[in-house]
Amino acid sequence: MSFTLLQQQYGERISGVLSHAVASLDDLAPELKAAMEYGLLQGGKRVRPMLVYASGELFGHVSAPALDAAAAAVECIHAYSLIHDDLPAMDNDDLRRGKPTVHKAFNEATAILAGDALQTLAFELLSSHGGHQLGAERRLRMVQELARASGYGGMCGGQALDIRCEGKAIDQATLETLHRHKTGALIRAAVRLGALCAQDVDEPQLAALSRYAEAIGLAFQVQDDILDITADTQTLGKTQGKDLVQQKSTYPALLGLDGARQLAEQLLGQAQAALAEIPYNTQTLEAFAHYIVKREF
Amino acid sequence: MSFTLLQQQYGERISGVLSHAVASLDDLAPELKAAMEYGLLQGGKRVRPMLVYASGELFGHVSAPALDAAAAAVECIHAYSLIHDDLPAMDNDDLRRGKPTVHKAFNEATAILAGDALQTLAFELLSSHGGHQLGAERRLRMVQELARASGYGGMCGGQALDIRCEGKAIDQATLETLHRHKTGALIRAAVRLGALCAQDVDEPQLAALSRYAEAIGLAFQVQDDILDITADTQTLGKTQGKDLVQQKSTYPALLGLDGARQLAEQLLGQAQAALAEIPYNTQTLEAFAHYIVKREF
Repeated sequence: MSFTLLQQQYGERISGVLSHAVASLDDLAPELKAAMEYGLLQGGKRVRPMLVYASGELFGHVSAPALDAAAAAVECIHAYSLIHDDLPAMDNDDLRRGKPTVHKAFNEATAILAGDALQTLAFELLSSHGGHQLGAERRLRMVQELARASGYGGMCGGQALDIRCEGKAIDQATLETLHRHKTGALIRAAVRLGALCAQDVDEPQLAALSRYAEAIGLAFQVQDDILDITADTQTLGKTQGKDLVQQKSTYPALLGLDGARQLAEQLLGQAQAALAEIPYNTQTLEAFAHYIVKREF
Repeated sequence: MSFTLLQQQYGERISGVLSHAVASLDDLAPELKAAMEYGLLQGGKRVRPMLVYASGELFGHVSAPALDAAAAAVECIHAYSLIHDDLPAMDNDDLRRGKPTVHKAFNEATAILAGDALQTLAFELLSSHGGHQLGAERRLRMVQELARASGYGGMCGGQALDIRCEGKAIDQATLETLHRHKTGALIRAAVRLGALCAQDVDEPQLAALSRYAEAIGLAFQVQDDILDITADTQTLGKTQGKDLVQQKSTYPALLGLDGARQLAEQLLGQAQAALAEIPYNTQTLEAFAHYIVKREF
C-alpha cells in the first residue's frame, strides 16, 4: 500500500476514534464539549497517532483496534498543547490549520478548559479502554510513559524553555534540548506506546524505536523551521515567517538553509539506522521518516 | 488524637510529599518549576489529601506512606485547577490564600503551563509511585477514577457549567449539579482513592464512602457560600463578597442564610449515616465532616 493511502486510512481511523470519544461525553457543558471537538477534529497531520499505529503494527499480531486508545490519547495531548500554545498569553495565534484557533472560535476561558479536559481525556482513554489483552502492568506503564513525555520533564518543560529562549541567541545544543522536550518527547512516546501494545516487544527493540523516534522528532522540527522560511502562509495553514517575527531561534538561522537541510538528511539516516536493528518489516516507519523530512507543509 | 493535631500532621506530611515531588524535577525550566512549587506549597486547607489519608487509614493495615502518591496526585489536580481558575480569562483573581496568585507572582504563560504540568504530575505520581503492593490492576483503576473525576465528566465540566451559569438565575438542582462536578467529584475521588489503597476494600464499602464524600463535598460548597457572606476578607484569605459581585448563584441566595445552614446540617447527617454502614472506626472521617460544616474560613 502506498504511504499516502496508508496515511489517509490511519487519518480516517483516528478521526473516527476521536469523534467517538467526544460523542461519548454527556451534555453537561455543551460549549466545552464543542470546543474539545473543534480542537481535536480540525484536521492536522495526525503524525502522532499514525506513529502509534505504524509502530504497533510492526508486530504482526497487533491490529489497529488494539492501538486506538493509545493513538487517541497521544493525539488528545497534542491537541490540548496546541490549544494552550495558541492562547493570547502564549503564542497569541488567531489561525491554526487555516481556521480560527479555539480561543477565537469560542473564548479564552473555554479554550483553557478544553485544553485541560483534553489532557485528562488522554489519561482516561489510556486507563479505561483498549489494551485489555495486555494486562494492567503494561497499561500502567503506558500511562506512566505518556505522563512523563507530556509533563515538566517533556512537553510542558520544553514549552517553558521555548518561552524563556524567545528573543535570545541560543546555541544549537540548547535548541536541540528545547525541541527534544517540546515536540520530541511526545513523538517518542507515540512510537513507544504503539510498540508497548505488542505483548512480545523487548527492551532492545524499544530502545531502537526510541532512537528512530528521537531522530524523526528532531527532523520534524528542523523541517518545520525550513518551511517557515520557504513555504507560503496558504500552504502552511498558519502565518509564514512567524518564527522570524517572534525572534525564535531556528535551525536555518543557526546553520543556514543548506546546513538545516543537511541536518534533516543526517537525522533521516539516523532514523534508518535505528530501524535496521529491528527484525520486522519497518517499511511504513521508514516511509514515515521520509515523509517527515520531505514534506512541504 | 485531636482532629486539629491530626490535621496538622497530615498537613505536614502532604507538604513534605509535594515538596519532594517538585524537588525531584530537574532544572530544565526553573521558572516553571518555581511556579509549580508556588502553586502547590502556598498552604491551603489540604482537605483532599487529608481525605485520602483518613479514608485509607480506616483500613487498619494501610499506612500513610502507602497513601502518599494518591494524596499528592489529588492535591496536584486541585492545585492546577486553582491556578487556571484564577487566570484573567477565568475568575481573574489576584489573591489566593492571602498571597498573589500564580499568574501575578509569575506571569500568565507560566501559570497556564504550571497548571498543565501539575495535572500531568498527578498522573505521573499515581502511575509511577506507591501502591506497588496493590498490583497494577488496582493502580490502573485509581488512574481511571482520578481522570474521570477531573475531566469533562467531573471538575472541568463543572467549571464550564459554572461559567455558563454566571449572571443567570439558576435553580437549586442546577446549582447542585454544578457543585457535584466542580468540587464534589474530586472530593469523592479523594475518599475513593484512599480506600482503593486498601487491598480488601469491597464495593459496598466504596459505595458508602462515596455517599459520605458526596455529602461532605456539597456541604463544603454550601459552607463556602455562607462564609463568602459572613466572614471578612482577612479571615478568608480571598476577597469577601466576590460571589455577589460576580453574580454567582449561591445557596444563601437561593435558600436564605438559615436555609443554607439547615442544608449544611442535613448533609452532615447524610455523611454520618453513610459512615454508619462501614464496619471500621470512622471517627476521623466523622470529625472531618464536622470540620467541613463548622469551619469559619
